[in-house]
Amino acid sequence: MSLRHALLGALAYGPRTGYGLLKHFQGSLAYAWPASHSQIYPELARLRAGGLIRQTAAGPRGSKTYELTADGLAEVRRWLRDEDPDRTVRSEAALRVFFLWLLDSGEAAAYMEREAEYQRALLEEFEAIAAAESSPPDRKHVAYRVALEGGLRVTRARLEWAEWAADQHRRAGDSPPRRRGKRRA
Amino acid sequence: MSLRHALLGALAYGPRTGYGLLKHFQGSLAYAWPASHSQIYPELARLRAGGLIRQTAAGPRGSKTYELTADGLAEVRRWLRDEDPDRTVRSEAALRVFFLWLLDSGEAAAYMEREAEYQRALLEEFEAIAAAESSPPDRKHVAYRVALEGGLRVTRARLEWAEWAADQHRRAGDSPPRRRGKRRA
Repeated sequence: MSLRHALLGALAYGPRTGYGLLKHFQGSLAYAWPASHSQIYPELARLRAGGLIRQTAAGPRGSKTYELTADGLAEVRRWLRDEDPDRTVRSEAALRVFFLWLLDSGEAAAYMEREAEYQRALLEEFEAIAAAESSPPDRKHVAYRVALEGGLRVTRARLEWAEWAADQHRRAGDSPPRRRGKRRA
Repeated sequence: MSLRHALLGALAYGPRTGYGLLKHFQGSLAYAWPASHSQIYPELARLRAGGLIRQTAAGPRGSKTYELTADGLAEVRRWLRDEDPDRTVRSEAALRVFFLWLLDSGEAAAYMEREAEYQRALLEEFEAIAAAESSPPDRKHVAYRVALEGGLRVTRARLEWAEWAADQHRRAGDSPPRRRGKRRA
């Protein structure tokens, strides 16, 4: 259950309201662990009941501010240190790529071009975030810059792959399958 | 629900037993959409009830062979053509990277080195699969080679990033934070 640790990690930066946490999950954390209002609020209640966060203030319209307790900080550190990351990956976009031979080659190429467009737009988002970056060079910032650089590099690799893949599918349709054994690919 | 379409796509290669499908999901598809015995068998029953696959043979120990129906093939093509891929990504490994400043810099660097080791082992798996590849150059093979190349490129990008990231965290611990503003990174 990583949302629990994502919330503890986000509160380690400093106290935040539930709304502030929601904004944080819609910002940078959305690329790693998207979470909605209806997931965040019940989990905050559980963390509070378990003594890992506490409420420090209530705003005029019932907004609550939360901060990490010492137990909460210990728990997020324990998670980082002692638990192996869950490496299960489920990617519908990756799954589809195995089955593109079920479309004709022009459709398969067009599919990969749409994939390239998506990755190009995502890369532009990451580049804009990187360009706007002016945080002080402390350790929080190093961690953030490392996460952002991971997004930039993987997205760039996916973009170049998708462009190459569109070309592979397009060329596979250039001649009938039975004649293609004679050429070198 | 992509398992449904993953099973239809896998059966588009030709008839398979439930056990053959399980092996397929533990092989190449495991990198995109891992699925277990207890997920695959009930979904096969639903696909059969819905007329998207049919049972063609029963083996001596109750093993069943399934093949795609015309409706099943139409459904997997419809999915590829008309439905946008679900692009929700949840990666615990990516999430943790934001929070590594909560460990000391040596621990954070060691964490990224373990990440690099994992990606290096995965890259070696992909390279071994690519080296063993001797499929005929038909369109199924083009799709498979495209999927494999995606795995190779993204894993290589993650490996290089993790090595760079370990170094960033290590260097962040070399001097006290307040003096680091004076250097160029």
